[in-house]
Amino acid sequence: TFTRGIQTVTLIPGDGIGPEISGAVVKIFEAAKAPVRWEERNVTAIKGPGGKWMIPPEAKESMDKSKIGLKGPLKTPIAAGHPSMNLLLRKTFDLYANVRPCVSIEGYKTPYTDVDLVTIRENTEGEYSGIEHVIVEGVVQSIKLITEEASRRIAEYAFEYARNNQRSSVTAVHKANIMRMSDGLFLRKCREVAENYKDVKFTEMYLDTVCLNMVQDPTQFDVLVMPNLYGDILSDLCAGLIGGLGVTPSGNIGANGVAIFESVHGTAPDIAGKDLANPTALLLSAVMMLRHMGLHSYAKKIETACFDTIREKKVLTKDLGGNSKCSEFTQEICRRVQDMD
Amino acid sequence: TFTRGIQTVTLIPGDGIGPEISGAVVKIFEAAKAPVRWEERNVTAIKGPGGKWMIPPEAKESMDKSKIGLKGPLKTPIAAGHPSMNLLLRKTFDLYANVRPCVSIEGYKTPYTDVDLVTIRENTEGEYSGIEHVIVEGVVQSIKLITEEASRRIAEYAFEYARNNQRSSVTAVHKANIMRMSDGLFLRKCREVAENYKDVKFTEMYLDTVCLNMVQDPTQFDVLVMPNLYGDILSDLCAGLIGGLGVTPSGNIGANGVAIFESVHGTAPDIAGKDLANPTALLLSAVMMLRHMGLHSYAKKIETACFDTIREKKVLTKDLGGNSKCSEFTQEICRRVQDMD
Ligand SMILES: CC(C)[C@H](C(=O)O)[C@@H](O)C(=O)O
Ligand SMILES: CC(C)[C@H](C(=O)O)[C@@H](O)C(=O)O
Repeated sequence: TFTRGIQTVTLIPGDGIGPEISGAVVKIFEAAKAPVRWEERNVTAIKGPGGKWMIPPEAKESMDKSKIGLKGPLKTPIAAGHPSMNLLLRKTFDLYANVRPCVSIEGYKTPYTDVDLVTIRENTEGEYSGIEHVIVEGVVQSIKLITEEASRRIAEYAFEYARNNQRSSVTAVHKANIMRMSDGLFLRKCREVAENYKDVKFTEMYLDTVCLNMVQDPTQFDVLVMPNLYGDILSDLCAGLIGGLGVTPSGNIGANGVAIFESVHGTAPDIAGKDLANPTALLLSAVMMLRHMGLHSYAKKIETACFDTIREKKVLTKDLGGNSKCSEFTQEICRRVQDMD
Repeated sequence: TFTRGIQTVTLIPGDGIGPEISGAVVKIFEAAKAPVRWEERNVTAIKGPGGKWMIPPEAKESMDKSKIGLKGPLKTPIAAGHPSMNLLLRKTFDLYANVRPCVSIEGYKTPYTDVDLVTIRENTEGEYSGIEHVIVEGVVQSIKLITEEASRRIAEYAFEYARNNQRSSVTAVHKANIMRMSDGLFLRKCREVAENYKDVKFTEMYLDTVCLNMVQDPTQFDVLVMPNLYGDILSDLCAGLIGGLGVTPSGNIGANGVAIFESVHGTAPDIAGKDLANPTALLLSAVMMLRHMGLHSYAKKIETACFDTIREKKVLTKDLGGNSKCSEFTQEICRRVQDMD
C-alpha cells in the first residue's frame, strides 16, 4: 500500500467516556503500527474577539495543518448563547458532507440483516441556517436555505463516493412535492450531476417513502444523498437498524481533504472513567479516517479485528451483550491486529 | 351502545383501486348493520371563480352537512398548478390533526411485535406553509411557519386523545436544538398544555432520537405529537413497522367534529379493477371513523372480524401473503361479522 510517511492527526478526545475510547483507538493504532502521529487538542469553544464563539486557536491551527481530525463525544455546553460544538466545528472547517456508512455487523443481532448503505447529508445549510424571526407575537418563521452551490457540491460528493466505493446507485431524498422551490432546486442539481455519472444509477424518492421502505427492507438502499435535516433523521434511523450509535461511524468531510471523523453517541457520563465504555463507534470512525488518508491496509486490518471480536462474542463490552471492560475489548482487538502480521 | 340514529357519511371512493376497496367497506358495514348512510361524492378539484382550485360544491356541501368523510386513494392530478388533493382537502375543511394509530397485527409478520402507538401530526402549517422565495439566482428560501395557536391546538388534541383512549404518555417530537424559535414555540405550547393533563405523562424528544429509538424498540412509544413535516415522516416510518400503508388507518380531524378518514396508500393502477386489492387500510380507517362517531360496538365488531381474518391466514389478499380476491377477503370478514350477532 501507498503511504506518505507518518501523517499527523488532530485528536479531540472529548468529554465523558471520550478519553477512554480515544485511548482505546490510540492503543489499537499502535498495535497495527498505523503511521499516524496524534496531536491532542481541546476544542471547547471560547469567546473570541467581538464576543464570537470560536474553537481555541491551538485546535484550529492543528486542524489547519493536519487537515484530519478524530473526535470523541463532546458535552453540550450550558453557557447561554454557547453554540453546539458539532455545529461550530462543521462551520469552522466548512465540513459540508456528513457521511455515515451503515453496515450490519455479523454477530450483533438486530431485526435486520445485510444492511449495507451510506447516508450522505448536506451539512451546512437547509433547516440549519439558523435564520428565524418572530413575525408577530405567536407567529414564528424559520428559514430553510437551499443553494445551488451547496446542492451541487453534495450531489457531486455523493456520486464521487459511489464511484470510488464500488457502489451502484445514488438515491436523492427530498420533499419537492411540498417544498417545490427549495427541495426542487436540490433535486434539480442532483439530476444534473447524475448526468455526469452514467455508471451510477440515479433514483429519487420522497423522504416519507424512504422511511417507510427503510424499515421494511433496508437492503434495497445503497447511497442516499439529502439536505441537512433529512440527513439528521435518516442517518440516525439507519444507525438504529444496525445496532445504534455505539457501533456507527461518521465522517464530516470538507474541501481539500479536510475531514473530522467522530463517534456520534453521547458522552455517557454515568459510566465515564469506569472502563466500561464501548470504543467501537470511534474505532470504526478511525477506520473511515484511515481510508480517507489512503491507508487502506491498516483500515482493513483494524476493521477485521474489530468485527471478528464482535462476531466471536467472547470479549464484549456490556452494551454489546458481554461483560468485559473497555480495556479488555481493546486488548482483544490489539491481539487480533498483531496476529495478522 | 349509544347511537344517534342513522348518520350520513360522505363517501369519496377515489381512483384506481378506490372504488373496489370502498365497495368492500360498504359491504362490510351492511353486514354489520352499521347505522350509516353513504353519500357518494367526487372531490377532484375544479377551477373556481378567480381561477382558484377548489373541491366541487356538491362534495363540499355534503361534507359540510355530514361532517364525516371516508376517502379512498386519489391520483395525483397532472394539470399544471393543480394542488395535491390531500392538501386541498386538509385546507378546505381545516383538518388540523392527522392521527395514525400503529398497532401490530397478529399473524401479519414484520420485524416488530407489540407495536401500539399513535402519531398525531399537525396538519396545517410548518414546512407545508407553501411560502418560498428565490432570493437571488441559485438561492432559495422555504419558510417553516409555526404559530402559537396551531401548536396549542394540536397539543390539546394529543392530550385529549391520550386521555380519552386510555393512553398513558404523550411525547412531543421536535428539533428545538436547531430551530430554537419555531420548534421552540411548538415545544413551549406542548409543555403548557401538559400542565393541564397531569394524568398523562409528558416527555419531549428530538426527532432524530425518536427515529433511532423507534427502529430499535417501538414498544417504548405511546402517543407522539409533532409539527407537520416530522409527522409526515414518522407516520410513514411507523406504518412500515407494522406492515406498511396497506394495513394502516388514518384520520384527519378538524374542529366541531369534522373529520375525513382515509387509507394513505396509493391508487395501485396496475391492479385496479382486477378484484385483487386489499381493503384493510380503508376498512380500519372506517373503524376509526365509527369510533369517532361514537359507534363503538360496530367498530369493535368489524375490527375483530378483520383481525381474525388476517390471523387465521385462510382468506388473504396477495399483498397479505394469501391468494384470495378482494371480494373473497371481504366476504370472509362479512361472514365473521354476521356470526358475531
Ligand atoms: C447535536 C446536533 C446539533 C446534531 C444535529 O442536529 O445535526 C446531531 O443530531 C447530529 O446529527 O450531529
Ligand atoms: C401527498 C402528500 C402531499 C402528503 C404529504 O406530504 O403530506 C402525503 O405524504 C401524506 O402524508 O399525506
